[in-house]
Amino acid sequence: MAASEKPHDDAREIQRLNILSGARSVFARKGWSATMADIAEAANVSQGLAYRYFPSKEAIYAELLDRASHLEAFENVRTMGGSAMDKLRYLINELLDINDTHIELFRLSVLTLHDDALPAALRAELEEQTEAFRSLLQSLIAEGQQTGVIAPGNPQQLLVALLAFLNGLCIMGIQGSENAKRHFPDADIVLRILQPPANS
Amino acid sequence: MAASEKPHDDAREIQRLNILSGARSVFARKGWSATMADIAEAANVSQGLAYRYFPSKEAIYAELLDRASHLEAFENVRTMGGSAMDKLRYLINELLDINDTHIELFRLSVLTLHDDALPAALRAELEEQTEAFRSLLQSLIAEGQQTGVIAPGNPQQLLVALLAFLNGLCIMGIQGSENAKRHFPDADIVLRILQPPANS
Repeated sequence: MAASEKPHDDAREIQRLNILSGARSVFARKGWSATMADIAEAANVSQGLAYRYFPSKEAIYAELLDRASHLEAFENVRTMGGSAMDKLRYLINELLDINDTHIELFRLSVLTLHDDALPAALRAELEEQTEAFRSLLQSLIAEGQQTGVIAPGNPQQLLVALLAFLNGLCIMGIQGSENAKRHFPDADIVLRILQPPANS
Repeated sequence: MAASEKPHDDAREIQRLNILSGARSVFARKGWSATMADIAEAANVSQGLAYRYFPSKEAIYAELLDRASHLEAFENVRTMGGSAMDKLRYLINELLDINDTHIELFRLSVLTLHDDALPAALRAELEEQTEAFRSLLQSLIAEGQQTGVIAPGNPQQLLVALLAFLNGLCIMGIQGSENAKRHFPDADIVLRILQPPANS
């Protein structure tokens, strides 16, 4: 083993994940203006220690983005069976689980996407991921309209409505009142906007 | 007329409204961090001129809040006839008109509500208005569930869903892409989340 390589170390890996988790939480709340001091505080470590794991907040953010692009849920939805509505239900339930981390990653993306201060390389990566997510939802809406499980009508309008709803729910799940979290809606309420009208 | 009173002057009133309008737009985009320089730029006047109309951004914000509390739409919805669903449709159509100012006032409220830097007196007024809006929606949901035009189920969950959806749409209407604005959803899509399930 070369001298520059560090031996694998469980405690080190756990601390690394702890700092990433703190960072995910503060980026999801403060956006790009979150500082290394905020991240260290959220991870309950000193700033000095945080810097021993990551050279900068840019490096932490880049790793969070990379992890977001490899989420199991995205892979699962591409390979699972079922109707377009089943796939959307699965995806939205994963995304809106307020005890899981997807909701923070989603909020982090939306919050930093329009911040001019975000470095260009990170923005390019974020835009690519945002576009992939949009395009996944778009193809599921198209598939669902074709098979009749999703309401007819302008698919772009349905997509904008769905994205807006998810965006608003992520904000509510992270920054909403305790009451909002206690009565947090599930995927079924979200999917009502896509349901075909009753034949009456 | 006392020397301290200014004679009524149409041009002066128009300039005043112009500055308020610029301020509404920048507060809706930047939140409380918007500065007098931003406001002056949005209103296309010099900072010096803006200060001759308003002593501070706090004064401008206070007047915007005051105007928001007297919106005709709120008065109309309290006096109009029709079902709870009709009233919600009217209210949401007013709110989501991306060519009107309500959407900016709504976004301004949501964006500044959780900013610790907002002065306490303004926060108290904002919280009162936010609570009045919540409580109006809540009473319409209760009325609609009682008369059967709104889906049964946890009314708090429907309220959280509706608020989240409106919040997400206001963001999209103000900061979304041109494509999102071109395909902006209307109140009917929003109200699908409240519709009773089809009897199938």
